[in-house]
Amino acid sequence: MELKLYVDRMSQPSRAILIFCKANGIAFEEVKIELAKKQHHSPEFAEVNPMKQVPAIVHGDFKLFESNAILIYLASAFSEVADHWYPADVRKRAKIHSVLDWHHSNLRRGSVGYIFNDTIALAFGAPLNPKAAAEGEKLLSASLTTIETYWLEGDKPFLLGNSEPSIADVALVCEIMQLEMGDDNDHERILGPHERALKWIDDTKNATAPYFDEIHAILPPVKEKLKELKLKVSKQSA
Amino acid sequence: MELKLYVDRMSQPSRAILIFCKANGIAFEEVKIELAKKQHHSPEFAEVNPMKQVPAIVHGDFKLFESNAILIYLASAFSEVADHWYPADVRKRAKIHSVLDWHHSNLRRGSVGYIFNDTIALAFGAPLNPKAAAEGEKLLSASLTTIETYWLEGDKPFLLGNSEPSIADVALVCEIMQLEMGDDNDHERILGPHERALKWIDDTKNATAPYFDEIHAILPPVKEKLKELKLKVSKQSA
Repeated sequence: MELKLYVDRMSQPSRAILIFCKANGIAFEEVKIELAKKQHHSPEFAEVNPMKQVPAIVHGDFKLFESNAILIYLASAFSEVADHWYPADVRKRAKIHSVLDWHHSNLRRGSVGYIFNDTIALAFGAPLNPKAAAEGEKLLSASLTTIETYWLEGDKPFLLGNSEPSIADVALVCEIMQLEMGDDNDHERILGPHERALKWIDDTKNATAPYFDEIHAILPPVKEKLKELKLKVSKQSA
Repeated sequence: MELKLYVDRMSQPSRAILIFCKANGIAFEEVKIELAKKQHHSPEFAEVNPMKQVPAIVHGDFKLFESNAILIYLASAFSEVADHWYPADVRKRAKIHSVLDWHHSNLRRGSVGYIFNDTIALAFGAPLNPKAAAEGEKLLSASLTTIETYWLEGDKPFLLGNSEPSIADVALVCEIMQLEMGDDNDHERILGPHERALKWIDDTKNATAPYFDEIHAILPPVKEKLKELKLKVSKQSA
């Protein structure tokens, strides 16, 4: 049964799904939906996901959107996925749902609020919004602290005190990687104080090597482009 | 094994969990955490949920927070819960995850943004914010349209084209019930145009009777109090 992933590698949940499939040897076709070109607004894509968002998947005759739901589905439907990604144990599974739900209203909201309004908006021809970026950064920094003091329990490398990664590690780390598109000094200011989180990001990269870096290779050139755009905008407004 | 629900009936996800347990004959102890009295900031409650939010549960020695994760856990851990609430079938389950994830960023965000800034803020001694309320209402109305045109497929009474309710119906309907605390004219303006959604709300009430009304009985007196507070504030600012 054919699996198609409708994704844009610029989108952090799209990257999480791509990395998850590659790390687990799940065969798929990558269908590129370029957000900056508004391809998610095409009538063809509305047939796949009426919400007009990536990622979305089609598996045989089954369509699904919402990235957490997709990760859970893939981990459940493909028998080659090892248990640690989404454990069968009801309580372990409940903790994964808990961190993914927490992510929605905290890390994700903070991260998107910050990086979109500080940088990425320019790629969509939208203005930057320093006030919204500052609010996003506040929630993002608080979320990073919660990850370090609560979700990364004890001295185990992964979330929820696990020795091996789950779908939650990949989802959350891909979110944080979005900051790579911002200014180096800002990146250092926000992530620098979070040594424990930085180690966890590295551990997740290593656990999904070489796919993590392969899928994130899209970011450095985009970062350079955004840097130029930002310079241009600041000169225009100076 | 004892189940304790840490809830405030003023909180819509707290009500969803109470109704779900009662409708399924799951025995529990209700531990009231009054948000308006800041009881969620007590050191005792931080032991239950370090995020200081309701609802949270303790089941034997297992602690859990985030309402969607709790509903899934209860439906999975208690064998008396019928399959339709959270089907074992991987694809049906995936669709429930999808609607619950969608809910986070759409209906819930819109509903909370509207009713908190239009009314409930007063109960917490916070000022109303008409601009934020208007933004919330816009997302809320769009979400109600999406529920009618997409999530309520075909002529079946419940979400996802189901003949019987799932945890998603209870979660989303309890969210909408929060609007009962607002002004009658505003309620009519927002919900009036959504006949299909109103029928679904009724169907969900009936499917969980008499517990739905029993748990929501807290709202009318609070509504009256908020009405008085609003009148007082508008006189002061006049």
